[in-house]
Amino acid sequence: MSTYKLYYFDGRGRGEISRLILAAAGQKFEDIRYQKNEWPSHKSEMPLGQIPVLEIDGIKLPQSMTIARFLARQFHLTGKDNLEQAKVEAVADTATDLLNKFGPIIWYQEEPQKKASIDEFFANELPKHLRNLETLAKAYNEGSSFFVGKNLTFADLCVYDVLENILEVDANILDQYPWLKTNGQKVAKHPNVAIYLESRLRTAF
Amino acid sequence: MSTYKLYYFDGRGRGEISRLILAAAGQKFEDIRYQKNEWPSHKSEMPLGQIPVLEIDGIKLPQSMTIARFLARQFHLTGKDNLEQAKVEAVADTATDLLNKFGPIIWYQEEPQKKASIDEFFANELPKHLRNLETLAKAYNEGSSFFVGKNLTFADLCVYDVLENILEVDANILDQYPWLKTNGQKVAKHPNVAIYLESRLRTAF
Repeated sequence: MSTYKLYYFDGRGRGEISRLILAAAGQKFEDIRYQKNEWPSHKSEMPLGQIPVLEIDGIKLPQSMTIARFLARQFHLTGKDNLEQAKVEAVADTATDLLNKFGPIIWYQEEPQKKASIDEFFANELPKHLRNLETLAKAYNEGSSFFVGKNLTFADLCVYDVLENILEVDANILDQYPWLKTNGQKVAKHPNVAIYLESRLRTAF
Repeated sequence: MSTYKLYYFDGRGRGEISRLILAAAGQKFEDIRYQKNEWPSHKSEMPLGQIPVLEIDGIKLPQSMTIARFLARQFHLTGKDNLEQAKVEAVADTATDLLNKFGPIIWYQEEPQKKASIDEFFANELPKHLRNLETLAKAYNEGSSFFVGKNLTFADLCVYDVLENILEVDANILDQYPWLKTNGQKVAKHPNVAIYLESRLRTAF
């Protein structure tokens, strides 16, 4: 039986997608969370001096999305064959494109620049990403409320994770995207995910 | 027998990694290359209005690295099990981090900003990425000249592809990184890759 340790900061950030996958799979894991002042003394313990890192059976694996895809395959959340896995990953990469635009604004920027960047993001960036996600869903979802095929995959968790950050800033962003809204509700109601969301630590990011 | 069509611009850019995988696998594919003036009339044919896109048996798959990973799995260039695949992807994501820094400079910037950005990149950005790649190789290569295990994988092709762009600007960047230099030579000598490199179209980027 493999053991899993996830090292990350005490926040959602780029680590939460892996926590969500482990939670959805019902897999116990050690959730190691460094405070910012603790991090410098642990940096050299990580392969690339970065976190998240997944330690599995003593091997430390870096790169947030590599970790997430590994866990998704490990727990059969990638669809039924190689092509379905590719569809799942296309959605995940499209969600990550969105996180790569929004994350640096909310995580690192300071006011007043932050407010201006958020306004610009909501006006000119977000709509095309939401349209892209709905386009992929329409192509891959086989009429279901999940992104690929008829069951929960890593794709749904990835989009949920990214949109959660944006919905915290504006709860109405999905009003024009009813399919995405329903998809998010389905994810939150998944039995294992619901238990996790209810019990997880509340963090500011 | 599946058929493969790869749509991209007439350059290496974010499409070449998939061409390299197909070439290494000895898989015939239709290499559709749009000139810049042709692209606007094809944009709406692509799922996200972007290329590269892989068309496999009539299904159009977007996202450059999703395509590359799909092809790597399809042609058994991802290692022998899920954990090896994760190691391969950790290297690929680390190479992509490097491309994400260097690509936008050489593809989109104009002089004189371009020259200043390249100097800054070589002085302050490149060394840490090369060290990261060597760190992963040391952890994963089992004493071989390939990144993961003892055989060519998608990881080697990905690093080759990214470094090729940088070596065109400065042919000496690997002088302090002998393992990376040898790895690149091994990739270029792989029989199928060597044939491809010899015969491929010469493009400016």
